[in-house]
Amino acid sequence: MEVMTSTFERADGRATDQLRSVRITRGFTSNPAGSVLVEFGNTRVMCTASVELGVPRFKRDSGEGWLTAEYSMLPAATHERMPRESMRGKVKGRTHEISRLIGRSLRAAVDLSQLGENTINIDCDVLQADGGTRTAAITGAYVALADAVSVLKSRGVVPGSPLLPPVAAVSVGLIDGRVCLDLPYEEDSRAEVDMNVIMTEAGKFVEIQGTGEQGDFGREELGEMLDLAEKGCRELIAAQKAALGV
Amino acid sequence: MEVMTSTFERADGRATDQLRSVRITRGFTSNPAGSVLVEFGNTRVMCTASVELGVPRFKRDSGEGWLTAEYSMLPAATHERMPRESMRGKVKGRTHEISRLIGRSLRAAVDLSQLGENTINIDCDVLQADGGTRTAAITGAYVALADAVSVLKSRGVVPGSPLLPPVAAVSVGLIDGRVCLDLPYEEDSRAEVDMNVIMTEAGKFVEIQGTGEQGDFGREELGEMLDLAEKGCRELIAAQKAALGV
Amino acid sequence: MEVMTSTFERADGRATDQLRSVRITRGFTSNPAGSVLVEFGNTRVMCTASVELGVPRFKRDSGEGWLTAEYSMLPAATHERMPRESMRGKVKGRTHEISRLIGRSLRAAVDLSQLGENTINIDCDVLQADGGTRTAAITGAYVALADAVSVLKSRGVVPGSPLLPPVAAVSVGLIDGRVCLDLPYEEDSRAEVDMNVIMTEAGKFVEIQGTGEQGDFGREELGEMLDLAEKGCRELIAAQKAALGV
Amino acid sequence: MEVMTSTFERADGRATDQLRSVRITRGFTSNPAGSVLVEFGNTRVMCTASVELGVPRFKRDSGEGWLTAEYSMLPAATHERMPRESMRGKVKGRTHEISRLIGRSLRAAVDLSQLGENTINIDCDVLQADGGTRTAAITGAYVALADAVSVLKSRGVVPGSPLLPPVAAVSVGLIDGRVCLDLPYEEDSRAEVDMNVIMTEAGKFVEIQGTGEQGDFGREELGEMLDLAEKGCRELIAAQKAALGV
Amino acid sequence: MEVMTSTFERADGRATDQLRSVRITRGFTSNPAGSVLVEFGNTRVMCTASVELGVPRFKRDSGEGWLTAEYSMLPAATHERMPRESMRGKVKGRTHEISRLIGRSLRAAVDLSQLGENTINIDCDVLQADGGTRTAAITGAYVALADAVSVLKSRGVVPGSPLLPPVAAVSVGLIDGRVCLDLPYEEDSRAEVDMNVIMTEAGKFVEIQGTGEQGDFGREELGEMLDLAEKGCRELIAAQKAALGV
Amino acid sequence: MEVMTSTFERADGRATDQLRSVRITRGFTSNPAGSVLVEFGNTRVMCTASVELGVPRFKRDSGEGWLTAEYSMLPAATHERMPRESMRGKVKGRTHEISRLIGRSLRAAVDLSQLGENTINIDCDVLQADGGTRTAAITGAYVALADAVSVLKSRGVVPGSPLLPPVAAVSVGLIDGRVCLDLPYEEDSRAEVDMNVIMTEAGKFVEIQGTGEQGDFGREELGEMLDLAEKGCRELIAAQKAALGV
Repeated sequence: MEVMTSTFERADGRATDQLRSVRITRGFTSNPAGSVLVEFGNTRVMCTASVELGVPRFKRDSGEGWLTAEYSMLPAATHERMPRESMRGKVKGRTHEISRLIGRSLRAAVDLSQLGENTINIDCDVLQADGGTRTAAITGAYVALADAVSVLKSRGVVPGSPLLPPVAAVSVGLIDGRVCLDLPYEEDSRAEVDMNVIMTEAGKFVEIQGTGEQGDFGREELGEMLDLAEKGCRELIAAQKAALGV
Repeated sequence: MEVMTSTFERADGRATDQLRSVRITRGFTSNPAGSVLVEFGNTRVMCTASVELGVPRFKRDSGEGWLTAEYSMLPAATHERMPRESMRGKVKGRTHEISRLIGRSLRAAVDLSQLGENTINIDCDVLQADGGTRTAAITGAYVALADAVSVLKSRGVVPGSPLLPPVAAVSVGLIDGRVCLDLPYEEDSRAEVDMNVIMTEAGKFVEIQGTGEQGDFGREELGEMLDLAEKGCRELIAAQKAALGV
Repeated sequence: MEVMTSTFERADGRATDQLRSVRITRGFTSNPAGSVLVEFGNTRVMCTASVELGVPRFKRDSGEGWLTAEYSMLPAATHERMPRESMRGKVKGRTHEISRLIGRSLRAAVDLSQLGENTINIDCDVLQADGGTRTAAITGAYVALADAVSVLKSRGVVPGSPLLPPVAAVSVGLIDGRVCLDLPYEEDSRAEVDMNVIMTEAGKFVEIQGTGEQGDFGREELGEMLDLAEKGCRELIAAQKAALGV
Repeated sequence: MEVMTSTFERADGRATDQLRSVRITRGFTSNPAGSVLVEFGNTRVMCTASVELGVPRFKRDSGEGWLTAEYSMLPAATHERMPRESMRGKVKGRTHEISRLIGRSLRAAVDLSQLGENTINIDCDVLQADGGTRTAAITGAYVALADAVSVLKSRGVVPGSPLLPPVAAVSVGLIDGRVCLDLPYEEDSRAEVDMNVIMTEAGKFVEIQGTGEQGDFGREELGEMLDLAEKGCRELIAAQKAALGV
Repeated sequence: MEVMTSTFERADGRATDQLRSVRITRGFTSNPAGSVLVEFGNTRVMCTASVELGVPRFKRDSGEGWLTAEYSMLPAATHERMPRESMRGKVKGRTHEISRLIGRSLRAAVDLSQLGENTINIDCDVLQADGGTRTAAITGAYVALADAVSVLKSRGVVPGSPLLPPVAAVSVGLIDGRVCLDLPYEEDSRAEVDMNVIMTEAGKFVEIQGTGEQGDFGREELGEMLDLAEKGCRELIAAQKAALGV
Repeated sequence: MEVMTSTFERADGRATDQLRSVRITRGFTSNPAGSVLVEFGNTRVMCTASVELGVPRFKRDSGEGWLTAEYSMLPAATHERMPRESMRGKVKGRTHEISRLIGRSLRAAVDLSQLGENTINIDCDVLQADGGTRTAAITGAYVALADAVSVLKSRGVVPGSPLLPPVAAVSVGLIDGRVCLDLPYEEDSRAEVDMNVIMTEAGKFVEIQGTGEQGDFGREELGEMLDLAEKGCRELIAAQKAALGV
């Protein structure tokens, strides 16, 4: 194992358990209630939280609010330009899948019963993609959500305290048999196993999704990946709190 | 804990670690190369594997084959009839998400390099839904795939041996604080945590997806869920092999 | 003509005026109010009737109910797999045409004024196609409709007696100059003339559609086709009544 | 019966076996190879036949041509304006159904093997609708087709003689128990039975579609309707030939 | 310049400042409140104005009416047949662009505050295209609008006098360095600059759109083009008034 | 008039002939060949130019290249969040209209015959909208285009010198009877007349679009608006050149 440690090198020189440099910029744009630019290395996602009066039909007269999310890549975000989904007239399965994941993850960070019958729309638009866009999106969206909740409270719309403690997300994966944290595109595309972990500040899982893209994985490898993910999420939560000044 | 054990009862009287009754019927229809009806209790899914010459553009001239999957619910499969996606003109995110999961899972059961430049289309159409449709679909689709590969080989289209050992899938979840195996709709809709586990015969994970729908979960609960899922998958793989007579 | 009779042989050995074996299975699935599997030889269609409170806008406040129908082929129902319409984003003209035919035919079997402001949704999903899918669908859907009406009445939702006597449907055609009943795919695809006849128990036509696919036809041939169709429909209505135990 | 004859009156004063006034204007527009305005009373349809080199994939290398048709209503053609299908993003089932009927009917008037690998596109756009739009469309489209074939022949594109003798179409129906020819909207919308008959010059049927919209019909009524339809089609074919000067 | 004048010749022999022959036919069809066939040379557009009770959501309870417009080309209107937008499932950008232009232009001819909460739908369907379809459409639609407003007033639906003085539209362009009025397709497709001008009877601009398709243009050329456009619009307004008998 | 001058004040304190502060940031993202963030006051648009081998069908074998453009607003760019077009399944007319305008404008800045058979895709995604998004997009896209052409040349793909001198765009309008330059949203939404002017470095027009949204305008007002637009465009071209260091 030691030999392996010494010879294994990540393309960007990071240690296997090291996050890329993380930047969270609040107030990135001014129209939405919350607007954040989050950067995990070269991955850059604009995350906004917009507030709308009323709730979808299935929540009407429940006294509760709702939170929903949409994820999208700008066409020139990737190395090769990708066709714009609005022009194709169809949203890709991958986009739907990630939008749903972000929605579930952020609903774990909000107490809908404290929100009143309001809807929060999270939008995560990837300006530049270099792996980990969904985990960056979740991490940044929490901060946008926190800002939006403050706006709601300051407007007197929200009676209670809907914001729950932070939720953050990170990817881990198995590269050449080594467990690595926070994969950039180059690693992600050749990883044997790719896992996204969404965690609360209390260290509990909101969601885990692990996929053996080019192989399968056992309980032991799963354990190692979760250890790394936990470390990564704790650091990301610290960054979220620093950004929020709490 | 003992007290809890004695009072906890599943609506259908099963033990917490017990699968619903599983039935796998080969040759359910006769046009596709493989056609299977799989039943997990009241959940019934028709799984077919159709073979097509040629591969999608991104695989052309690779010498390899491809496998893709589509999942759909018949409109009257659920308790309340749901609008037909073809009439709405849009496929729902949930449908895309499950189609992609089935595709990834089944690709773990086939060696594409042994398939020649052929494409296998997996179709999983839910005739009756009572929870666990995606796990039933994956489990049944493996058997349809095995039959389709036999057809390909008997036609002399496939030079190698593309079929890999079985892959099966099962759901586990946390209901009222108890870890339960193979959730029907009634349990699934109120589970605190819901997890789908796809496993190989060797006991390795192909994919795990765990979601805290109404809460989060720790490492210990994760471990318990995986234990149960592993037991369930082993039994499902036995059922697959029995159905295939291997 | 006699010589012709002695030499003409249908691929499946039937007499020209003979139906394929017909099977009608009630209670095929359990969620919809009525659920029937109908088989005309190798053609198998799942027909369901689901009940919904309320009526479409154009029937609102009319005091009457409504019945509508949707037909679809599963992608692997045919010899060569066909693309799924939901994924193409468009419903084919053929599908629309058949859905509309089924709706008109079944509305002839229900007294909408006795239904209250309820809607019955008929879904006919072809599991396996071997010609005559629309006629099998209509024949099976009547039985599903009858079961759904019973459910409505037992729930006390329906004041009157909306179910009218049976309606059944069969195809006839001209093959090599011979009039034949109930065409399988092999005959249907090479028939000179193809006709679908929908008839009531009283022997009246609800709809007739005759098409000279590869030629035209005169009054005499029409008469012969209708004679055969009438014979076929009478037998199908007997099968419907036997299935319903009336 | 005599009493009935004396009291029954059609809103426009026609005899029951009388066509509305028919007008066929060739060269209505100048870009397509054939362009005809056909009028059945107040129903006005612009029918064009455009020629395109090549054939659809399923006809390629067959040495044969193809003919396809599209029908559409302008939004203001009907009494109440109807939403434009292009703006709704969906073509209605009725539109598909009629387009397919026109295509089948006109293919009965052309010998595809004499056409070379060329495609004729028939477009029937309803400028004003007052019942019988599909029968007017078929009747007018034959004339446009004849003109287009002449153009093809004069350009030397077509080796043989693809044009077959005329095909015309008319509606008949049962109104208040009386069989009537060529129904305007007012009659069509309250007819007990509505039938469209497409016939060749030789008096053979290309297609018949009879629907008991508000009731059913027996063999005798069918016979009466076909008698009237045959009379109508003969007169329409005379009009087609007069328009074409043959 | 004189030499140029003597040698420059338009394909149809017109002077550079001369409109094509203009024909405006009222009552072209009878179902819509206003229906006009407008012809600018070979360009022929059917313009209708249909009246609907109520207004779109954004105008509700404003006490004002609304006017909206849709433009479309019949598939065989152009020299080469173009695919029908309803069948493609998508409306082209050009179609949207022109529909919006027509709507804006006609709203300049109606006082919405005098209309009551009614909506006027303008439909402009091009039967034959030879350049200038959008300007012909606007010019004809004003006449259809005038007729529709008369219908509204005669029905007593409209309290005030919503119709404003005429608005007309014409194209001008730079062809081989010469400013020309009312371009047919042949000129339009090779013009260096193409400009559409919409003008009121008072000689004020409602909209001007000038595009350097194959080059750019200066203030002087702009002035010349506007001079010609003004002349053209004045003549078109005279034609509108003559058609309306005012 | 003098009195008016002294009392008229723009909400942001600018002189009527003054641009908002303009910022052009090159290299805003790193994947596309050219990537620029352009800011006109609070309006912020990300403009990218991506290069693709090959040209669309209508340009194939012409030896020339092509340039096309797509414009889109992020959902949270506006004051009230707008639904995402990809999720609606339809692109709005306004989006199409602006995409086409950007494409035409940028094609005036590139000599397609010098580009080889390559396609440049311009994407303009509005991150924050405060009026003038289309003019900012065109102005920024020229800079992205210039960078992309440099990349092409450095890769040796382009034989000639396709980049033409700068093209810039600005809006002008009539607010309370005063001609103003570069309208923010607040002015744009209540302007009597709104005009977009696209101009070359030589002071020639590429496109002008003037619309009397709430009124019409005469030749004199047009002249004043063009004077202001010319001043604005000259300043924007200076900013483009400064950004490019030329």
